[in-house]
Amino acid sequence: MIPKDLFSLYLIVDPILCGGHSHCVKFLNAVIPCGVKIVQLRAPNWHKGAILALAKDLPNGIPLIINDHVDVCLASGADGVHLGANDLPVESARKLLGPEAILGYSVNNEKALEHSIRLGHKIDYLGIGPVFLTATKADHVPPLGIERLRSICSRSIHPTVAIGGINAQNAAEVMAIGAPDALAVISAICAADQPTKATRELCQEIERGRKMKKATANN
Amino acid sequence: MIPKDLFSLYLIVDPILCGGHSHCVKFLNAVIPCGVKIVQLRAPNWHKGAILALAKDLPNGIPLIINDHVDVCLASGADGVHLGANDLPVESARKLLGPEAILGYSVNNEKALEHSIRLGHKIDYLGIGPVFLTATKADHVPPLGIERLRSICSRSIHPTVAIGGINAQNAAEVMAIGAPDALAVISAICAADQPTKATRELCQEIERGRKMKKATANN
Repeated sequence: MIPKDLFSLYLIVDPILCGGHSHCVKFLNAVIPCGVKIVQLRAPNWHKGAILALAKDLPNGIPLIINDHVDVCLASGADGVHLGANDLPVESARKLLGPEAILGYSVNNEKALEHSIRLGHKIDYLGIGPVFLTATKADHVPPLGIERLRSICSRSIHPTVAIGGINAQNAAEVMAIGAPDALAVISAICAADQPTKATRELCQEIERGRKMKKATANN
Repeated sequence: MIPKDLFSLYLIVDPILCGGHSHCVKFLNAVIPCGVKIVQLRAPNWHKGAILALAKDLPNGIPLIINDHVDVCLASGADGVHLGANDLPVESARKLLGPEAILGYSVNNEKALEHSIRLGHKIDYLGIGPVFLTATKADHVPPLGIERLRSICSRSIHPTVAIGGINAQNAAEVMAIGAPDALAVISAICAADQPTKATRELCQEIERGRKMKKATANN
């Protein structure tokens, strides 16, 4: 299992939003030093050859997670895979990846949370969302909202990453009230006018939200 | 390498064309005894969870090839993978699959043929096409025609499977003139009114084409 403090800011990178292969590499080299702790490569509209080539070219130093494709993870030497309900079953993926790989699992409702609890140590963290409405994923279920996020996070036996419509305006509130361990963003960084500035702001807001939560807990 | 006589009729099965998971299983149980020698599962619009579930339910007894997804092949215990130019590179796939798996490679032009020759024993057969115009693959390159198919087949160092727009009306001619080792079809069987009858007819036409070729060679 990965430590809870590993990923306060989890960046899901869409290479199309970033302008293609080489722009994506440059982009990550710029934003990672600003506070990104873990990167997921998510390119649902790209062929696997292109995803593998990009995965091999991405900067080292922080964990790289591949969305969906266990074979791309194995071929690229990435650190893990993120799986949703329609992807390979967690059991199959864990068998192929071995015990050391990081395996994330999407939780969109309470039923999926129950399943994640049954999966136990086969998964390392949960991606919980969408918290808010988002245009990035077209096939999305209705948003959870912060209260339902808080309920799911409180019952999770895994580290939790909130996802879906999160940006610098709502990050502190999500951390304080929803109380996940980390936040994941796509467009708040990938589509920002100034991605490095947006990354730093998000990190500050995450910290501010953590302090708000602690202050509330201490009262 | 798989023996040249293994796959005179190579069926690429599209589970959507076949009416979904359970219809696809029934369909294959019906057509395989009519002469299909090898099956490829190709479901580009399906999630991997559904492809894996179907792969596990398909009849045993003849080789099952998974289009594109090395991870699905490994998780399902299928016999091999078919790769195109945009998929994982052959070298990466072979490393993940091991030496025993059947690995097919798509050749759409002379440049890809040259690449297949360099790949040597890393691949087991070539899928060459499209021979004719076809509606099944939307992103297709222009058709090769029979003469160009013949030229490519004659230079291949691997067993060859012709694909693209092949049906009972043109199968004998393709075998006789183009001279591949086998023919692959999708809609000629999957979209036929009577799939078992269509399968038997295709097998007869393949044999007739082989005899025509031999007769020409002997004259």
